[in-house]
Amino acid sequence: MSKSTSISGKNWSVNDYADGILRGDRVVLGRAITLVESNRPEHRELAQQVLEKCLPHSGKSFRMGITGPPGVGKSSFIEALGSKVVREHGRKLAVLAIDPSSQISGGSILGDKTRMERLSVEPNAFIRPSPAGRSLGGVTNCTHESMLLCEAAGFDTIFIETVGVGQSETAVAGMVDFFLLLLMPGAGDELQGIKRGIVEMSDLIAINKADGDRIELAKSARRDYAQALHLFPAKESGWQPQAVTCSSQTGEGLAEIWELLADYQEVVRGNGWFLENRKEMMIGWFRLRLQDELLSRLYENPAIKNYLPKIEAAILNGEISISNGVKKLLSSYDGKNL
Amino acid sequence: MSKSTSISGKNWSVNDYADGILRGDRVVLGRAITLVESNRPEHRELAQQVLEKCLPHSGKSFRMGITGPPGVGKSSFIEALGSKVVREHGRKLAVLAIDPSSQISGGSILGDKTRMERLSVEPNAFIRPSPAGRSLGGVTNCTHESMLLCEAAGFDTIFIETVGVGQSETAVAGMVDFFLLLLMPGAGDELQGIKRGIVEMSDLIAINKADGDRIELAKSARRDYAQALHLFPAKESGWQPQAVTCSSQTGEGLAEIWELLADYQEVVRGNGWFLENRKEMMIGWFRLRLQDELLSRLYENPAIKNYLPKIEAAILNGEISISNGVKKLLSSYDGKNL
Repeated sequence: MSKSTSISGKNWSVNDYADGILRGDRVVLGRAITLVESNRPEHRELAQQVLEKCLPHSGKSFRMGITGPPGVGKSSFIEALGSKVVREHGRKLAVLAIDPSSQISGGSILGDKTRMERLSVEPNAFIRPSPAGRSLGGVTNCTHESMLLCEAAGFDTIFIETVGVGQSETAVAGMVDFFLLLLMPGAGDELQGIKRGIVEMSDLIAINKADGDRIELAKSARRDYAQALHLFPAKESGWQPQAVTCSSQTGEGLAEIWELLADYQEVVRGNGWFLENRKEMMIGWFRLRLQDELLSRLYENPAIKNYLPKIEAAILNGEISISNGVKKLLSSYDGKNL
Repeated sequence: MSKSTSISGKNWSVNDYADGILRGDRVVLGRAITLVESNRPEHRELAQQVLEKCLPHSGKSFRMGITGPPGVGKSSFIEALGSKVVREHGRKLAVLAIDPSSQISGGSILGDKTRMERLSVEPNAFIRPSPAGRSLGGVTNCTHESMLLCEAAGFDTIFIETVGVGQSETAVAGMVDFFLLLLMPGAGDELQGIKRGIVEMSDLIAINKADGDRIELAKSARRDYAQALHLFPAKESGWQPQAVTCSSQTGEGLAEIWELLADYQEVVRGNGWFLENRKEMMIGWFRLRLQDELLSRLYENPAIKNYLPKIEAAILNGEISISNGVKKLLSSYDGKNL
């Protein structure tokens, strides 16, 4: 079992990584995340050892998922809110992205278009794009582990940006404390690119771009959403989702959003849900990974790969029942090693 | 492999069951469902053989899930709408219930309180309560298989009633074409017993008990829900969920609901979603059963039973990472038979 590996020409040990992260060294943190993202078995092995050194120091942050349709201004919003919480509230902020299709086109940018130039130069902000060339499952695993490393490095506020058009939001909902949906002014229409489930999992809907001649439209959209959200039952957290307006350009509404996040934390820490949910997310994440691993061993078995489509066709044709399909498939797998 | 078994003192063969079901004999159908619900291995074996004979004749129905909070009048609603579709529209209706806590307290009743006396005497209606003494997973499996037998017996309309307070709705959503939520007049408050996810999966919200001095309250609740539903994105089916008022007592609104069901079918059969969803549900059901079986073999393994809580505690204490937890747990299972 190798205790060190070569990244950028230097052999670093588990302790080199862990010590660097725990003293908040951003360069070491960045390299450790690269290790987490690596597909090479020796990197994975080392990454797991680094993670285990860091784990006891992780978890002490507020984690927010942020999503919204393309063009709503997610990056500008994150830059505006992020700069505010770093400068005015003294927070240490890590911004991670979950976007299986994104490409790393530079060191400290999230997308191709917006560079988050203001935020990226803040000493208390750390910005990390999605790992490239991975599946959604791979990306979400990397993001989950990267988040834990950021927490161990002392970041007390985590923003996880998702693209808002796929399934990544469900994965993010399983790792964050709070979920924010950004929408554009003009009720209804702008939701067309957003999946129903995303609206439903949101703790806060923020109508962005509430500036210039869009203010009234934004206010009217806010009222409509506030009313709609109020009709739906409260969430398990005890939190009643809210709707607000904001503008990354004028800064309008950002203070209110930060206050709502504080209110939220007061509610969910007060009723015990925060910690309970953290534990449940951790066990849920473990059970999901366990299940994924067990299922991928099944589905990647050559005999099963060959047999499964035949069984499924027979079920769709009404030739065999589901129960018998399960029985037949697993008996062809029986006796083989997991 | 026994081809017959003793139920009520008579040995019936697979063909006795299948022939009886296919000619629409309700007594045979009832006994076949009892067989499906049985925990005895020889009954399960025979049930699977009966199912496979019936499968090619199943699927030709419209399947609706119906839920709502306790006291909303689900049974009265089902009796009122059911009597109407049987008498006025010449449909053959099977009513099944998913309620893990329910007890069979008679031959043809769904709950303890309401006997559905009018509906139960209709020759074209078949009412079957939940199997008693089974887990939720067991009940939903039984209900799914019973539904297929009812379809093979010629029932072209299936109502599946759920209690509306637990997780059974998600299972039902995976086997029905349409999901109806019954609510009481008076917006907001009555949702407190209903989980958020149930509102969200509904294709139709019907405000029941819209009679007497509750009419105005019901109309106002309907308007509020209609507006709220409209703000949310359309479902994958292309159907925009609606809100209506109705009364099981006066019959008001029942014709409109039946028309909406027809509209819905026109939309989803027209855009191909109906059949696509049926296929997806079938494969989804199979994959879920496969996964359940694989996981239950893992979780029921004595070594795993002993090891799992230790691994999960270590994860919660930050002693090991999730990835390592998965690895350790599965390597202790490795090499053993599934």
